[in-house]
Amino acid sequence: MNILVINCGSSSLKYQLINSDSEKVLAKGICERIGIEGSQITYQPSGGEKKITVSPMPTHTQAIKLVLDELTDEATGVIKSLGEVGAVGHRVVHGGESFTSSTLITEEAMKAIEECNDLAPLHNPANLIGIRACQELMPNTPMVAVFDTAFHQTMPEKAYLYGLPYEYYETYKVRRYGFHGTSHSYVSKRTAEFLGKPYDSLKTIVCHLGNGSSVSAVLNGKSIDTSMGFTPLEGLVMGTRSGDVDPGVMQFLMHKEHLDIDQMMDILNKKSGIYGMSGVSSDCRDVENAANAGHKRAKIALESFAYRVAKYVGAYAAAMGGVDAITFTAGVGENDKVTRKIVCEHLAFLGIQVDDEANAKRGQEVRISTPDSKIAVLVIPTNEELAIARETLALV
Amino acid sequence: MNILVINCGSSSLKYQLINSDSEKVLAKGICERIGIEGSQITYQPSGGEKKITVSPMPTHTQAIKLVLDELTDEATGVIKSLGEVGAVGHRVVHGGESFTSSTLITEEAMKAIEECNDLAPLHNPANLIGIRACQELMPNTPMVAVFDTAFHQTMPEKAYLYGLPYEYYETYKVRRYGFHGTSHSYVSKRTAEFLGKPYDSLKTIVCHLGNGSSVSAVLNGKSIDTSMGFTPLEGLVMGTRSGDVDPGVMQFLMHKEHLDIDQMMDILNKKSGIYGMSGVSSDCRDVENAANAGHKRAKIALESFAYRVAKYVGAYAAAMGGVDAITFTAGVGENDKVTRKIVCEHLAFLGIQVDDEANAKRGQEVRISTPDSKIAVLVIPTNEELAIARETLALV
Repeated sequence: MNILVINCGSSSLKYQLINSDSEKVLAKGICERIGIEGSQITYQPSGGEKKITVSPMPTHTQAIKLVLDELTDEATGVIKSLGEVGAVGHRVVHGGESFTSSTLITEEAMKAIEECNDLAPLHNPANLIGIRACQELMPNTPMVAVFDTAFHQTMPEKAYLYGLPYEYYETYKVRRYGFHGTSHSYVSKRTAEFLGKPYDSLKTIVCHLGNGSSVSAVLNGKSIDTSMGFTPLEGLVMGTRSGDVDPGVMQFLMHKEHLDIDQMMDILNKKSGIYGMSGVSSDCRDVENAANAGHKRAKIALESFAYRVAKYVGAYAAAMGGVDAITFTAGVGENDKVTRKIVCEHLAFLGIQVDDEANAKRGQEVRISTPDSKIAVLVIPTNEELAIARETLALV
Repeated sequence: MNILVINCGSSSLKYQLINSDSEKVLAKGICERIGIEGSQITYQPSGGEKKITVSPMPTHTQAIKLVLDELTDEATGVIKSLGEVGAVGHRVVHGGESFTSSTLITEEAMKAIEECNDLAPLHNPANLIGIRACQELMPNTPMVAVFDTAFHQTMPEKAYLYGLPYEYYETYKVRRYGFHGTSHSYVSKRTAEFLGKPYDSLKTIVCHLGNGSSVSAVLNGKSIDTSMGFTPLEGLVMGTRSGDVDPGVMQFLMHKEHLDIDQMMDILNKKSGIYGMSGVSSDCRDVENAANAGHKRAKIALESFAYRVAKYVGAYAAAMGGVDAITFTAGVGENDKVTRKIVCEHLAFLGIQVDDEANAKRGQEVRISTPDSKIAVLVIPTNEELAIARETLALV
């Protein structure tokens, strides 16, 4: 079956058409600047050239229509008709406490997703618009919602409750949700497969390190803790996000700089992290180049980043009462051997030994610990689209 | 030498007179409601009865005068004249980056302390008032300031910098400072002495668990990380303080509940933590009683508290590349065997084994790990006043 995977933002829409038998990507691309002047669609069939077409997209429905036109284009399309799309899998950011796994989209499910809008006001409404647009153009094709939060719904109360008045949990469902769930689920499963160990009796720590970053503790196939919280701001230092910060800092800075809370959050979300610390870039590659050239703040930013990853790994080893495998994934996790090395050096006392040659490999599933290492350390490239396609297939 | 130890708050003042040769407390007490109607002084000579006197204290100078009168009282005093007070040691909350150790109080030091007022607006001004009042009444007695923050000034940048725009550090010195430094210093030193190991080659994690709580990583005699941050709000779940919380929670709640940042901080400081989670009390003893009686939220609050301690210990083991000793101190750390047991169970994978009989002891320095345990786990009662007296003696 061919599955169309849709990741719809407020003004952009990423798509992949994946064949579920071969698990190959048939075509992929992105619509940008939807509803804004200068919108364009990128389309790339597998093995073919990337094509960029500037085209007006006043609405998401128009954007999806262009995607479907590209996929069925006589010259460059990869399918003959929409009938060849067996299902659509939609990435949905927030499933609140209502969704502990992916779900077939019904009107009831749509309502439940809408009820989570409050928890992800920038993302869920856009995700819903993408679903509605697809429904309009493919009314008879089954659709599935795959949530960023669902995998973490197995966390126990002691991990998901904040030290806040309990009423805020009761009234508003303020708690830790965690994100990147599709990736943490996919990568932790692949870790067990790679090691030939049963998923339901393995202690894995997944370090999803990208522009947004999170660490999760996966105990016997279930997420029991993760570093992102009520929002994707908490936890590690990220590209432009601060991660953990003393709330007292916010009060101090809001008074000193005459900021309201939205302005403060804007700074914590967009002007902080590796970018704010280094003053160089939010991209670890740029910052590493600067650090290598002697840029002091760039060096500190990278050190802080790796140091916090190591601390979260230590914390989650304690949370699970031990760890069998540590797996790095996502842009930085897959490609940054220096960060991996620093993290592992901090954890040498647990019996971790890194094989430097293996750690230098790129773009593949690889064990980077030595055969003697008491804990297996792996790199597993994440593939959220494939994970969404698999979840979709399982439900249609 | 007799050393008067003063801990001066905005409307209260705790004091102890300690003989530095015997390290015995000669007398101690507290002035309460200074500058407020109904003020009173408590005075208790060693081995004697506690005396409470209601007396007007319009100013801190008046309060100190009453303290000195009690100490030299013909009937119940423990010294004959003020000449027998060799020095005064003052607890000062915030030394910023200016003070990396205790300091003899000079006019220059006073100015430097005043410059830290901004960082601890509720505490430092009160500490300064206490110093001035003592100077007025004992102009020729040397005085020493002992800072809550000084011990943590050895933290490296990667531990003390937040993932914030670097300008905030440059302009306002926004960074992690850490608190309870006198306790962490005293307890980590005693840990090395207790174990008969050199302080400068020991990896110790100190869990100071009281109404306010913090964990520190002491590597070779130096604090390299600690859970409290720019303010004493960050880190563990405390009596009424939230500890770590996603900044996004604050934005969400401020909008939902129409709070300004000061109101929000008030909730995080005074209505959260064990108190807010349990709805029972900020005192762990009350909450434990409730939990034992089946109170669900009380149980969750205590579990969350212990779970976070365990995670910080795991994180700091990673920070130091291992750990030789874990020491519990302060009210809860010294008396709550259940919390200690839960924390140690999380860390069993490191080779920790608890001796339940030793863990049941109270009010003494004791090793609660078995002789086989790979990591020593201790209880060391903290004594901040004695630590202040020692620091004072060393400088006069």
